[in-house]
Amino acid sequence: MPHIVLNSAEPGIRGLLRYRPETARPLSELTEVLLRGPSTLSRGERELIAAYVSALNDCRYCSSSHSACAAAQLPGGMTLVDQVRADPGSAPVPAKLKALLTIASAVRDSGRAVTAGQVAEARAAGATDLEIHDTVLIAAMFCMVNRYVDGLATTAPDDPALYAAGAQRLVVHGYVAPPAEAGREG
Amino acid sequence: MPHIVLNSAEPGIRGLLRYRPETARPLSELTEVLLRGPSTLSRGERELIAAYVSALNDCRYCSSSHSACAAAQLPGGMTLVDQVRADPGSAPVPAKLKALLTIASAVRDSGRAVTAGQVAEARAAGATDLEIHDTVLIAAMFCMVNRYVDGLATTAPDDPALYAAGAQRLVVHGYVAPPAEAGREG
Repeated sequence: MPHIVLNSAEPGIRGLLRYRPETARPLSELTEVLLRGPSTLSRGERELIAAYVSALNDCRYCSSSHSACAAAQLPGGMTLVDQVRADPGSAPVPAKLKALLTIASAVRDSGRAVTAGQVAEARAAGATDLEIHDTVLIAAMFCMVNRYVDGLATTAPDDPALYAAGAQRLVVHGYVAPPAEAGREG
Repeated sequence: MPHIVLNSAEPGIRGLLRYRPETARPLSELTEVLLRGPSTLSRGERELIAAYVSALNDCRYCSSSHSACAAAQLPGGMTLVDQVRADPGSAPVPAKLKALLTIASAVRDSGRAVTAGQVAEARAAGATDLEIHDTVLIAAMFCMVNRYVDGLATTAPDDPALYAAGAQRLVVHGYVAPPAEAGREG
């Protein structure tokens, strides 16, 4: 049961976006820009970073939701997502993405845990400065979102089919339109 | 020296906002809503939560900057801010704010560290659900911003007078206008 009385039964961040539309708007916009805006990282790769950090933070709602979004947009599907979540070092992903996942994991520990060596390795594997920037900010953003979702004890469904259906909606409509606008009417 | 090549010599998050205006806009808007928008928590109290979490995360730029903003807007000034950062339990702040700082500290550890008991204590001290919500989101947001600022190894000035001057600008102009708009022209 959530720590506060929400104005809907929506699970995870969806209930929080509906509860507080003033913060929902910039939060949704930030998510849309980072995970779906123009980028040389694919949408699937960015969702994978989000899913990986959320799993490290043990946030069930976010890790399930973004794993489903990554699986829907990566050729390797949920098998690949599960491999990355279990051990990115041995997962069949390109060296550049592996190096960016290492940076994301460091950010999750602390901003100060990111080393010049990790950044040099990502650059050697072909990562651009903007890709490194966005990886750090995506990882940092999920350190916020995971804390927001679990800090208010929001609910998280068990059924993987619900997350898969939600991912299909997000893949088509994105993060800005449905939840934020629904929130404003709530 | 920052991990990536920025397009200005601006310190801390200011250089990052200028570098990536697409993310600067929602980040600035979220900060404005949470720290300065309509609320039953004063602007000084909200800056104090931001300063406290940033200090726990050992983020020098953010803790200095938001300490200066809190000091500029609280009757107790920097003396009170220093007392809260050293030990909120013994600092001369109202019981409600003390309970909210306890929640903020838990969020900083992990969303899952927030307990029903901490929330009940805040409520008993007079905190509303919206105040509890905003405290969780402010603390979570600074877990993002601190990681963003330090994860890219941005610079942080030493001189407290620079942070005090920055705080005066923020108190007058807020978070949306100057840095984000400057970023768009960068």
